[in-house]
Amino acid sequence: MEASTLSRIGLAGLAVMGQNLALNIAEKGFPISVYNRTTSKVDETLHRAQNEGPFPLSGHYTPRDFVLSLQRPRSVIILVKAGSPVDQTIAALSEHMESGDCIIDGGNEWYENTERRIQEVSNRGILYLGMGVSGGEEGARNGPSLMPGGSFEAYNNIKDILEKVAAQVEDGPCVTYIGEGGAGNFVKMVHNGIEYGDMQLISEAYDVLKNVGGLSNEELGEIFGEWNRGELESFLIEITSDIFKVKDDLADGELVDKILDKTGMKGTGKWTVQQAAELSVAAPTIAASLDCRYLSGLKEERENAAEILKEAGLKSGIDKKRLIDDVRQALYASKICSYAQGMNLLRAKSIEKGWNLNLGEMARIWKGGCIIRAVFLDRIKQAYQRNPNLASLIVDPEFAKEMVQRQAAWRRVVGTAISAGISTPGMCASLAYFDTYRRARLPANLVQAQRDLFGAHTYERVDRPGAFHTEWTKLARNSNAAGVHALN
Amino acid sequence: MEASTLSRIGLAGLAVMGQNLALNIAEKGFPISVYNRTTSKVDETLHRAQNEGPFPLSGHYTPRDFVLSLQRPRSVIILVKAGSPVDQTIAALSEHMESGDCIIDGGNEWYENTERRIQEVSNRGILYLGMGVSGGEEGARNGPSLMPGGSFEAYNNIKDILEKVAAQVEDGPCVTYIGEGGAGNFVKMVHNGIEYGDMQLISEAYDVLKNVGGLSNEELGEIFGEWNRGELESFLIEITSDIFKVKDDLADGELVDKILDKTGMKGTGKWTVQQAAELSVAAPTIAASLDCRYLSGLKEERENAAEILKEAGLKSGIDKKRLIDDVRQALYASKICSYAQGMNLLRAKSIEKGWNLNLGEMARIWKGGCIIRAVFLDRIKQAYQRNPNLASLIVDPEFAKEMVQRQAAWRRVVGTAISAGISTPGMCASLAYFDTYRRARLPANLVQAQRDLFGAHTYERVDRPGAFHTEWTKLARNSNAAGVHALN
Repeated sequence: MEASTLSRIGLAGLAVMGQNLALNIAEKGFPISVYNRTTSKVDETLHRAQNEGPFPLSGHYTPRDFVLSLQRPRSVIILVKAGSPVDQTIAALSEHMESGDCIIDGGNEWYENTERRIQEVSNRGILYLGMGVSGGEEGARNGPSLMPGGSFEAYNNIKDILEKVAAQVEDGPCVTYIGEGGAGNFVKMVHNGIEYGDMQLISEAYDVLKNVGGLSNEELGEIFGEWNRGELESFLIEITSDIFKVKDDLADGELVDKILDKTGMKGTGKWTVQQAAELSVAAPTIAASLDCRYLSGLKEERENAAEILKEAGLKSGIDKKRLIDDVRQALYASKICSYAQGMNLLRAKSIEKGWNLNLGEMARIWKGGCIIRAVFLDRIKQAYQRNPNLASLIVDPEFAKEMVQRQAAWRRVVGTAISAGISTPGMCASLAYFDTYRRARLPANLVQAQRDLFGAHTYERVDRPGAFHTEWTKLARNSNAAGVHALN
Repeated sequence: MEASTLSRIGLAGLAVMGQNLALNIAEKGFPISVYNRTTSKVDETLHRAQNEGPFPLSGHYTPRDFVLSLQRPRSVIILVKAGSPVDQTIAALSEHMESGDCIIDGGNEWYENTERRIQEVSNRGILYLGMGVSGGEEGARNGPSLMPGGSFEAYNNIKDILEKVAAQVEDGPCVTYIGEGGAGNFVKMVHNGIEYGDMQLISEAYDVLKNVGGLSNEELGEIFGEWNRGELESFLIEITSDIFKVKDDLADGELVDKILDKTGMKGTGKWTVQQAAELSVAAPTIAASLDCRYLSGLKEERENAAEILKEAGLKSGIDKKRLIDDVRQALYASKICSYAQGMNLLRAKSIEKGWNLNLGEMARIWKGGCIIRAVFLDRIKQAYQRNPNLASLIVDPEFAKEMVQRQAAWRRVVGTAISAGISTPGMCASLAYFDTYRRARLPANLVQAQRDLFGAHTYERVDRPGAFHTEWTKLARNSNAAGVHALN
């Protein structure tokens, strides 16, 4: 094969995501080779490249032919299921690869697996990237948000491709080099955790508006549409508006009411919560969204509990117009807290691993392509540009001002929902987070006193340095008598 | 050495916990050998055995002498720091042990480490127990709650000792064989997670009473004392009452106000939260307590945030007497939810590992000795005796009735705290858990619709079987026009 006929890049794993990303790359003018173990997928992709193109895409039916069809240094994106399929694909391809070539895993992989593989392939001089890809099937085809981490050299080899293929927003393509090791996978994991939080908060807004405010699906569609023209403008708000408009084609009414209330999940939300705990970062809004997915799965238990505990909840009259406006503000304020948690998780990991993550850049590359794309990410970017060492988004002057302005509405919504017996775990968690974080003095002094009493864990004082231990019980029983005495 | 002079059991690791447990065993009439690498600790323990006894306790200065001083099959309790010190101690002792002998690790060990060690020592026929010990130093000396898991044969060898040494309550000693493998460590871990929840909820009750209700320390001491004579009767409520009574000997006022509000921790709470996520169990109250420990550590950040966000929170007039009674009920209801979470976590792990945990027995052995000991644990025991397959404590008929009775007060407290800007993350998390669990229909249908829209994840319907996928966006944009049309 002549050099001129070699492809610039390869992609292995041709499920819908893989096909779409390959077509996206080819459409941008980069000749691409594709491969899949089940060869019919190769033909399918070739067919689509003709139909939607024609695009410069060539199909290959063996790992060897596939790898040898690429220009050196070779870059191969793999898009297969996370875990052992990735290892198998690496084994099959790397056999034919040479020093300086690179494998790019585009799946939702656990970041430590990427770090293990970086080590493994480095023995043969092969480079490696773990690249988060967000935007679903549609994003892959038309412009995803890309989060590549690992070998900087390998990133530079395909930088021009990634920048063309990624979603484009006014301040550039939605891709940047994230950091070493598994940084790309980790950032994608936290992106998904934030996505869990967004979806949960939106579902709570829906729940309150429907079950406290009594809004119809038509009204809900309109309200979310309206919200999408303001500070909440985002992909998820937009699609939520659409969802309420879809009629059921199997029965009367809207389809949303016929959907079973059990939520599936794939692991990245769980990892985010576990990593937050590991890194001593509070991420209660994201954790609440994970818990709600778990509880949603217990449909039968919930039906039973609803029978037993049906007296709970106390409905009362409501000002519908004010409720709608309050819910909008509560959703926005809750969302800021959730992003603050995700960003602080990224920073904690960055410090642990020495990734040197640029938080403003993370917000920027999420502005387009991905599921959490939203106008307000630009404001997060700006907040970190103003102060890269910002302790939390909620103390950025602009966000802080918004939080304070929205707090009355936010407290009303959560309070109203609590009275009505409608759970808003995500909004509650965000508000508790806000109210905990903004307090100079917490009741943790009591917890420390308890720990010192039963475990001799010692405590610090507010007024002088050192570690102290007190014989609490002995003194209490004495001072009790003294106290009673003093009262006489 | 003649058989008659051999000790019944040995204990290695003579920090305060180890010394106290050894003295407890000796005091109950079981001849015990003790060993510590730093030999002064051996002498210290011998001295205490004379002073507090005399008790049948012999000191040894080398691992060999120590092991050979024991009757066969030998049982050796080790109480050293979790992690590699345990491995080192096992290595030093097992060299001199024989098939059928047993090592019992009494530390707060990660359960998988115990399972690894069970395998490792089994090569030489040595048995192994991972035994949770709760009750702090005082419990170790006078009667702890013991959670031994691993070799049933090894448990039987020392059952008579453990039953004498453990705390005694009216329905027996606070010990039972927990299950195979790392079951004992896992149950102790969840015990600690529940302990985190209890301490957090109590600190929130304190916070609301102090900062919303304006109660003085003296009043707080009295209120908690009063609560300790009712349904909340427990060790932690009792010591909380004591804590408010202790005067500061370095300054005016009560000591509790001088303690720095930064809470330490040791890992078991974190593991509990991570395991809950791993096992798809919602444990939001325990997670909230962990988050609050993390946030408490950010003292400087909080002081800064308090400046920036000081306008937050809206105080209003309060009926002090009613608030106190409401807080009591809120604390109790929140606590039940927290225990429901912990129990369900135990069950999920038991199913995964085949441990066959008896949840009622777990509640029983926590009734005495340990930090979470409380009168209401007997009611939890009874609930599981009534129905070992109880889906959740909150649907047990008795607890359900209590929850419903207390819900109005509970909603008032959380609502009042939210209005006042006083965070009650644990109570909020419990209430959101309750309100989520008791709803037959959650807004998770919207989340599923979103996932189907952007990720083609499909959804189920409430009215017929099967997995469905819908072209939401296309239909919404069509039906939107149609919808407008239908409205004319």
